[in-house]
Amino acid sequence: MAMQSIRFEKTIGKLLEEKKYQTLKDILVTMEPADIAAVFEDIGEERMPLLFRLLPKETAAETFAELDSEWQELLIRGFSDRELHEIINELYVDDAADLVDEMPANVVKRILAQADPQMRREINEILRYPENSAGSIMTTEYVSLRPKMTVAEAITRIRRTGVDKETIYTCYVTEERRLLGAVSVKDLLLTLDDETPVSEIMDENVISVNTLTDQEEVAQMLSKYNFLALPVVDQDGRMVGIVTFDDAMDILVEETTEDIEKMAGMLPSEKTYLRSNAWDLFRHRIPWLALLMVSATFTGMIITGFESALAAQVVLTAFIPMLMDTGGNSGSQASVTIIRALSLGELEFADLPRVVWKEAETAALCGSALALLCFGKILLVDRLLLGNPITLGVAAVVCVTMALTVLIAKLVGCTLPMAAKKIGFDPAVMASPFITTIVDALSLLVYFGIASALLF
Amino acid sequence: MAMQSIRFEKTIGKLLEEKKYQTLKDILVTMEPADIAAVFEDIGEERMPLLFRLLPKETAAETFAELDSEWQELLIRGFSDRELHEIINELYVDDAADLVDEMPANVVKRILAQADPQMRREINEILRYPENSAGSIMTTEYVSLRPKMTVAEAITRIRRTGVDKETIYTCYVTEERRLLGAVSVKDLLLTLDDETPVSEIMDENVISVNTLTDQEEVAQMLSKYNFLALPVVDQDGRMVGIVTFDDAMDILVEETTEDIEKMAGMLPSEKTYLRSNAWDLFRHRIPWLALLMVSATFTGMIITGFESALAAQVVLTAFIPMLMDTGGNSGSQASVTIIRALSLGELEFADLPRVVWKEAETAALCGSALALLCFGKILLVDRLLLGNPITLGVAAVVCVTMALTVLIAKLVGCTLPMAAKKIGFDPAVMASPFITTIVDALSLLVYFGIASALLF
Repeated sequence: MAMQSIRFEKTIGKLLEEKKYQTLKDILVTMEPADIAAVFEDIGEERMPLLFRLLPKETAAETFAELDSEWQELLIRGFSDRELHEIINELYVDDAADLVDEMPANVVKRILAQADPQMRREINEILRYPENSAGSIMTTEYVSLRPKMTVAEAITRIRRTGVDKETIYTCYVTEERRLLGAVSVKDLLLTLDDETPVSEIMDENVISVNTLTDQEEVAQMLSKYNFLALPVVDQDGRMVGIVTFDDAMDILVEETTEDIEKMAGMLPSEKTYLRSNAWDLFRHRIPWLALLMVSATFTGMIITGFESALAAQVVLTAFIPMLMDTGGNSGSQASVTIIRALSLGELEFADLPRVVWKEAETAALCGSALALLCFGKILLVDRLLLGNPITLGVAAVVCVTMALTVLIAKLVGCTLPMAAKKIGFDPAVMASPFITTIVDALSLLVYFGIASALLF
Repeated sequence: MAMQSIRFEKTIGKLLEEKKYQTLKDILVTMEPADIAAVFEDIGEERMPLLFRLLPKETAAETFAELDSEWQELLIRGFSDRELHEIINELYVDDAADLVDEMPANVVKRILAQADPQMRREINEILRYPENSAGSIMTTEYVSLRPKMTVAEAITRIRRTGVDKETIYTCYVTEERRLLGAVSVKDLLLTLDDETPVSEIMDENVISVNTLTDQEEVAQMLSKYNFLALPVVDQDGRMVGIVTFDDAMDILVEETTEDIEKMAGMLPSEKTYLRSNAWDLFRHRIPWLALLMVSATFTGMIITGFESALAAQVVLTAFIPMLMDTGGNSGSQASVTIIRALSLGELEFADLPRVVWKEAETAALCGSALALLCFGKILLVDRLLLGNPITLGVAAVVCVTMALTVLIAKLVGCTLPMAAKKIGFDPAVMASPFITTIVDALSLLVYFGIASALLF
């Protein structure tokens, strides 16, 4: 169950102190690699290598793949060449490539020296592709079949070669490395005539991705089609690997976290929160804070420009926070909705007119509702309850500004992310903080403009 | 490829007009159900039933499961009883249960009348469980094996019964419906001795969930352990179904979208953006906008309270937007980071002291950097460039307030979501808009407090 790693942590620490290694082995063998990795990371660097050596070979490799890179480096530095050799060659190629990608140069050298020639070639193959491309996350270990094989021959081939493959359940039919079709183990097993050729039962309409396809698109395709794996083909149309569903899930979670971080005005971070120290957090948060603070110079300039008007009607100042916050909130509702729809592939640039129209309608509804509510609030709360002598003129200026601010905010909020996407920028950056700054300035201009026209 | 549905849409409309049904059949048979569903939804309600009837039986059911509920209802209303019978009984049980859950009562009655008795029983079983529980999303169609079966017998059983199962790749070993272990088809195929009993190769440490486990937790476990399926057991420890990885991916995406919507101050919506009309958007957006607008009464009261001070030093007003926005941005950085970490299970309430300390350190770094930058900006831009006669006293007040605002914002931003989680509220609601409102009021109090102390 989910709580396993937490329950076991203390027990394992204690058993380790008492050197009850056999009991520890018995416990570890019942656990999932992801849980073992969690215990290892909690148990600290001194005791981890000892505990790691108690794992059976295959579990050791799987647990190793689940560890964060700093712990992997620590373990590798403690490994003998023989131990390193065993772990590296037991890893799936995509995990080995990730490892090589993240380790410092001197560790990489040791890893590649210990990798078998086949493994080393495949690692290098994967590392050739740009970061976040399908090629960089694929594994080269898949089952390939020939079109003329019979079902019985195909099953024999799977039984013989399947042990090292990341998935055996979708097999790819190729000829001279060209992808002809896909056949699932389910189809093979459910075909009762053993002599049927694979070409007869394979699905010829295989959806594939290119080595350069973005990993987020690959993950969304796996999720959309409910596939276990997607084949990856190179520019010449030759099959070079597969991306499996478990990698797709991790990518979906990671990419969404990145989007959320960007939407909140932060640079995306690869470390988890508890692993990040204050300096890491500072570096990821200060750029947008500083930029947005400096850009508030404009709102300051606008207020300064209307200083004399404000001095005459100081009551106007009291509504500035409300107008700015409502503008900010309205804008971020629109922008966040659009950014999410863009990243899920539900919207594209061609939808812009529909989106703008829909947001305008929504703004009309929200704006008039808020203006009415605000008018009532001013009369009941501010005037009656709090006894502030707010004139009907001021109340009208505030409420009209409110409605217009909502309209401006919704239009800016929906347009900017779509425009960003169109010109190849990341739409997630066009979220609340950025839009708030723009909407602040615009709404102040409207506020003082209307106030000047009506009150002075 | 991803663009298939878009490319095909026009072609299909044209072929339909020209009544080239055989060509249409030939095209549809090459497409994935998810893509066919996308084309159907674009092609409109009049032509959809006709097109639907061109699909082969199995593809028809899979495509039907991919459609949005409004289109499903439309199709069902057009189906003859025989057509309905065929589609319903071809669906996977979890999809059929979803359908029954979403249709109006009179349609449900027809569906259940056409479902085979076995199907009807299983649908009702799933509908007994609370919404968003493992029981409500599981399917009851899985392969179960007995411990004494040999590998050969197990494979024969899979070949005989597998065709209706949602996944055959993980099989569950049960006795009197108690879950004893799990065995994968990979393990079965790779065991070369056909006479090995299943009990010898099965994994006895099966991770399972309870029927009442929350669907988000189930999805995260599937993602963490990279399983194809998780078994679901009832309160008496009997196995009742499985949840598969494809459902987990959909849940992860849905729950994240919900979180993002809540974080931006919206009620979560189940409709996609383009399907929602302005009225839907209004209903989901207005509650928070209205609540936050009214709560801005406090910031208004604070400003009104210091009205005479402000009238004497109107220049102070010019910095209100900058201080408020920086506070809002700092607070949302902290809150969004914490909310995401909570929802990914990286943080729990016990971590609160560490979190508060880390945010305080980060706030010290961010706050002092921003205060310095702000001081420089006032001297260089506001005084020198724009020629505003801002005194060093005012500059000092603004910069000290800036640093304190960042500290307050980060502390409120990290504490509120964790406290919400602790008392059983949804932390996602404690995001930017809510925190901005609180931080606004606090930072204005600090601002005027310091100004009063230093300037008057």
